[in-house]
Amino acid sequence: MPSYQAPVADALFLLNDVLHWDRYNNLPGFSDASPDVVEAVLGEAAKISEEILQPINLSGDHEGCVRNADGSVTTPKGFKEAFKAYAEGGWIGLATNPEYGGQGLPYTLATLVNEFSASANMAFTMYPGLTQSAIAAIDKHASTNLKQIYLPKMIAGTWAGTMNLTEPHCGTDLGLLKTKAVPQADGSYAITGQKIFISAGEQDLTENIVHLVLARIEGAPAGTRGISLFIVPKFLPDATGNPGARNPVSCGSIEHKMGIHANSTCVMNYDGAKGWLVGEANRGLNAMFVMMNEARMGVANQGLSQSEVAYQNAAAYARDRLQGRSISGPKAPDKPADPIIVHPDIRRMLLEIRSFNEAARALILWASLHADMATRNPDEKLRQTSEDILGLLTPVLKGVFTDRGFDNAVKAQQVFGGHGYIAEGGMEQFVRDARIAMIYEGANGIQALDLVGRKLPKDGGRALTAFLSEVNAYLKEEEADAAMKPYTSGLKQGVSHLQQSTVWLMQNAMAKPDNAGAGSYDYMHLFGLVALGYMWCRIAKAAMARKAADASQAAAMDAKLIAGKFFMERMMPETASHLARISSGADTMMAMPAEAF
Amino acid sequence: MPSYQAPVADALFLLNDVLHWDRYNNLPGFSDASPDVVEAVLGEAAKISEEILQPINLSGDHEGCVRNADGSVTTPKGFKEAFKAYAEGGWIGLATNPEYGGQGLPYTLATLVNEFSASANMAFTMYPGLTQSAIAAIDKHASTNLKQIYLPKMIAGTWAGTMNLTEPHCGTDLGLLKTKAVPQADGSYAITGQKIFISAGEQDLTENIVHLVLARIEGAPAGTRGISLFIVPKFLPDATGNPGARNPVSCGSIEHKMGIHANSTCVMNYDGAKGWLVGEANRGLNAMFVMMNEARMGVANQGLSQSEVAYQNAAAYARDRLQGRSISGPKAPDKPADPIIVHPDIRRMLLEIRSFNEAARALILWASLHADMATRNPDEKLRQTSEDILGLLTPVLKGVFTDRGFDNAVKAQQVFGGHGYIAEGGMEQFVRDARIAMIYEGANGIQALDLVGRKLPKDGGRALTAFLSEVNAYLKEEEADAAMKPYTSGLKQGVSHLQQSTVWLMQNAMAKPDNAGAGSYDYMHLFGLVALGYMWCRIAKAAMARKAADASQAAAMDAKLIAGKFFMERMMPETASHLARISSGADTMMAMPAEAF
Repeated sequence: MPSYQAPVADALFLLNDVLHWDRYNNLPGFSDASPDVVEAVLGEAAKISEEILQPINLSGDHEGCVRNADGSVTTPKGFKEAFKAYAEGGWIGLATNPEYGGQGLPYTLATLVNEFSASANMAFTMYPGLTQSAIAAIDKHASTNLKQIYLPKMIAGTWAGTMNLTEPHCGTDLGLLKTKAVPQADGSYAITGQKIFISAGEQDLTENIVHLVLARIEGAPAGTRGISLFIVPKFLPDATGNPGARNPVSCGSIEHKMGIHANSTCVMNYDGAKGWLVGEANRGLNAMFVMMNEARMGVANQGLSQSEVAYQNAAAYARDRLQGRSISGPKAPDKPADPIIVHPDIRRMLLEIRSFNEAARALILWASLHADMATRNPDEKLRQTSEDILGLLTPVLKGVFTDRGFDNAVKAQQVFGGHGYIAEGGMEQFVRDARIAMIYEGANGIQALDLVGRKLPKDGGRALTAFLSEVNAYLKEEEADAAMKPYTSGLKQGVSHLQQSTVWLMQNAMAKPDNAGAGSYDYMHLFGLVALGYMWCRIAKAAMARKAADASQAAAMDAKLIAGKFFMERMMPETASHLARISSGADTMMAMPAEAF
Repeated sequence: MPSYQAPVADALFLLNDVLHWDRYNNLPGFSDASPDVVEAVLGEAAKISEEILQPINLSGDHEGCVRNADGSVTTPKGFKEAFKAYAEGGWIGLATNPEYGGQGLPYTLATLVNEFSASANMAFTMYPGLTQSAIAAIDKHASTNLKQIYLPKMIAGTWAGTMNLTEPHCGTDLGLLKTKAVPQADGSYAITGQKIFISAGEQDLTENIVHLVLARIEGAPAGTRGISLFIVPKFLPDATGNPGARNPVSCGSIEHKMGIHANSTCVMNYDGAKGWLVGEANRGLNAMFVMMNEARMGVANQGLSQSEVAYQNAAAYARDRLQGRSISGPKAPDKPADPIIVHPDIRRMLLEIRSFNEAARALILWASLHADMATRNPDEKLRQTSEDILGLLTPVLKGVFTDRGFDNAVKAQQVFGGHGYIAEGGMEQFVRDARIAMIYEGANGIQALDLVGRKLPKDGGRALTAFLSEVNAYLKEEEADAAMKPYTSGLKQGVSHLQQSTVWLMQNAMAKPDNAGAGSYDYMHLFGLVALGYMWCRIAKAAMARKAADASQAAAMDAKLIAGKFFMERMMPETASHLARISSGADTMMAMPAEAF
C-alpha cells in the first residue's frame, strides 16, 4: 500500500527562503500567520493528511460511492468520520471570511493544506475543495442575507457546496444551457433542468448540500448573456437556519468512471427546485467565474498532489527493489542485485518528476500569494498587478500542472514495472485519479485558449508585460552571479523562446485567428516551462544562501541544486520544440477536410 | 459504445504502393499471398475483428476474468465462442510452419491481422498472440518429437501457449530466478517454483495450456547462464497426443489490475510439474528470446492498435459533437454550435495521433517484411541485413509504439471531455489497456537499454550503419524532387540529430557507461521519430504517384500528404530536444545520492 509524507520542510523553505513570507506581514491575515504559526498549521495539516485521509484512499477507490434506491449516496467507509475531523479541524474555513466564522488566514496557506490533503486522498479532498470554491463565490457575489444563511454552515463544514454547470449537450459551451429559472412571488426562482458530471452532487457527509446552479431566467437572452447563478440547497433552510423541507433536487444516477471513485459524480435533476439568485440576473457566468478560478487553482494543485505522492512511492521503491547491476559496476556487491536507483534511466524518471514538483509547488505558492495580494494589498496598483499575474497564471497552472501531474503519475508507475499495474499496489490509482484533472474545470485545451485568446491580449498585454518584466529584471540582477549561471542561462533561453512565440502569435493571429488556436497548447506548455524555470532560479539562489548560512542543511540544499540543474538540462530544452510547433501555424491542420479525419 | 473499422484500405496501400509487395513474390509463402489473396485475407480479418471481437471488448473489460475456488479461470461472456471462431478461421496459424498445419503465409500479413484483432479487443488478442509466440519458440528450438506433439494443436488453437519468466523477486533481472528443474529417469524434468504476472496462465478457452517456463536445472550455474527453457503442459499429452493426466501446475490467484481485465494475469505454482527441455540446457534465455522478440513486436502492435481504435472514435466524436463556434467564424450557422472538429486544438490532437498511426503501421510492416526476409530470403547476406535491421527496430518499435500508443489513447480520450472519463463510453478502457504495453515484455526503459547498450554496438554497429545508409541513400535519391521537400527536409534534420546523438554516445559512453544509460530513453524516441519520418517520406512519395495515376484516390491521398506534413512540422522538431537531453549526459542525475531521492 502506498505511503505519504507531507513535504512540510520544503513548504517552509519555499515560504520563508524563496518567497520571503516575512515581507507580507503588513497584510490582513498575514500578521496572524507568523512563521511559527505557519509551521504549526502545516504540521497539523500533515498529520490529518497522513493519518486520517491517506489510509482510506486505496480502500475508498476500491469501494467507491454507491447510489441507493432512494437517490441517496453512500460514500466509502471512513469518509464520514474523516470529513467530520476535517471540518472540525477548521480546515475548510482556513482562509475564509472571519465575519462568517472563517479563520481569515492567507489563501497561500490553504493552497499548501489542500496539496497535502489531495496527495493523501484526492477524491476526498474534492468534497471540502468544492465547498471552498462555493464559499468564495457566495462571499463575493451573494446578498448579505444569503451569506448569513449559508456561509457559517459551509465554513464549519456542516453543509457542503457543489457547482452545477454542465448539461448533457453542453460542457464547454455554456451558452447552450437549457436549465430554466422561473421567478416566484416570494422572490425565489423555480429551477428545472438536468445537470451532469456534478462532483459531490450527493453524499452522506454533511447535513445539507448547497448547489450553485447556472440557469436561464425565463425570457432571458439566448447565449452566455442570459445565464444567471442560483443557490439551490438540498434542504430549504427553515426559520432557524437549519435544514427544513426537502427541495425537489435529486441525484438521478452516479457515473462509473476511470478514477476518483470515492467522489460521487452525479446526474442532478432539478424539478422546480427553489433557488435564490446570486449576484445580478444574467451575470451568472461572471459570478461563477470566481468559483471556477478558485477551482482551477484547486485542480492545478491536484495535479501537483498526485505527482508528489506518486514520486514519494516510486523513490522509495527504487531505493528498495533489487534488480540488475549498475552499468558502471556493482554498487551493492553483498546483495543479489543493486537497488534499481543505480540505473540512470530510473533516475531520469524520478528527476523528471521531482524537478517538476518542487518548482510547481513554488509556482502555485507564488500565484497564491498574488491571489492574497490581489484582495489584501492596500496599494491599488499592486492589487491590480497581482490580479493580472494571477489571471495569466491560472490557465497555465491548471493546464500544465494537470498534464504533468498525470504524466508524472504514469512515470512513477513505470518505476514499479509490472507491480505498478496491479490495483493493490495503489500506483495505478494515482494515474486514474490524476487523469480527471486534465479534463474538468475546463479541459486543458480550453485553458490554452483562455491563455492565448483572452489573457494575453487583455488590457493591451499588461499581464504578460508584468510577468516578463519581472523575469527579465531578475535575470539582469543575477547576471553577475557565476554560481547562478547553470540556472539563469536555461531560463534565458526559455524566455527568448517565449518572447519569439509571443511575437509570432501577435504577427500571425490577428489576420488568421486559427494560428492562435493551433499554437495555444504549445504556448501554454512553453509558458509553464518558463514559469517553472523562473521558480528554479529563485529556489537555487535561496538554496545557495541557506547552505552557506547553515551547514546542517547542505545535503537538502544540494539535492535542490541538482534537481534544478536537471530541470534546466532536461526539461527546458523542450521550449525550442514548442517554438517550432507554434510557428508552424494552422495551415496544415486546417487543410484537412472534416470528413477526411 | 466505441466502434471500430479495420483500416484495410490503408493496409493495402502500404503493402502495394509503399512496400511494393509484388517485389517479394519469389519468397516462400509470398507466392501464395498475391494481392487479391491479401485483400481477401484482410477483409476476413476485418470482419472477425469488427463483428466478433469488438462487440465483446467493453463488456469483457467490465466483467473481467474470475478465478474459481478450484483454481480454474472463467473468461468473460462470449470469449470462448470468439476464440473458437478465431481458431477455426485459421488466424493463429496464419504465418506458422505448414509442416505442422500452419498456412505459411508471410509474417507481415499476420502483423496486420493482429493489429486489427488487438484494436477490436486487446485483452482477447493476447490469448492467440501468446500462443503464436510460443509456437515460434517451439518451432525454432524444440525437438522434432516435441514439435509433433505440440505444434499442430497450438496452430489449430485447441491448445494455447504462455510464457513464464517473472518471479516475485525478479522481473527484468532473470539471473535471479529460482524455479528449479530436477532431471527425471524418463528424460523429463520436475519443475518447482512460483511464477507471477503470467498472462493467459489459466483460462477456459482451450482444452490444454502449454506453458513455456524458464527454470534452473539442479546444479546449473548461478545467473543467466544457468537458465533452461521447458515445456510444461497443463494436461500431460497421452499416447494418442490428447490431454491426459493433470500436471501439478495451477493458478494460485489472478491479479486485479488497471486494465486488460479480460485477460487473466496469473500467479502460477509449479509443484514438481513434469516438463521437457526445449533447446539446450542452460541456453534457455537464448531460446526464450525468440519468443520475446516475437512478443515485443506483438506488443508494439498493441500500442498502434489502441492508438488506431482510439483515434477512430475520437475523430467520429469530433465530427458530431456540437460545442462552441470556430474562431474564424461559424461553420455550421444553421446549428446551435459548430462541430468541435472546427477547433485547431482538436485537430492538433487528432493529427498527432493520426500522423503517428499511419507511419507506425508502415514501420511495423516494413520491420515485419524484414522478419520475413530474415528467414525466407535465399540470399544469406540479405537475410543477415534483414535480421540486423529487425533486431535494431524491435526495441524501438516496442518502446516508441507503446509510449505513443498510450499517449494517443489519452489524447483521444481528451477529445471527449468529461464523457471520455466515463466507463460506459469505452475511451478510458483504451487508456487502461494501452498502459500495460509500456511495461510488459521488458519495460520501455529496458528496450532503450537494449537499443543503446546492445543493438547499437553489436557487430561494430553494422545494423545502424545499414539503417542509416538506406535512409541517407533515400534522401539523396529524393533530393531533386521539389514536391518531396516538405517531407525530406524534416527527415534530414531528424537524421542529423540522430547522427549527432550517436557520435556523442560513442565519444562519451565508453569511458562512462552511465552516459549511455542516461541518454538511452531519449535516443530510442529520437530513433523512432526518424524511422517514422522515413516512412512518411515513402508514404508521401507513393501517395503522390497514386494520386497522379488515379484521380478517384485524390482525397484519400491528400489526407495522407497533409498528415505527413503535420508530422514533419509538429512531431519531428522534438528530435532537437532529444539531442539536447542526450548530450547533457549523466553527471547531474548521478550526482544525487540515493538517499536524497
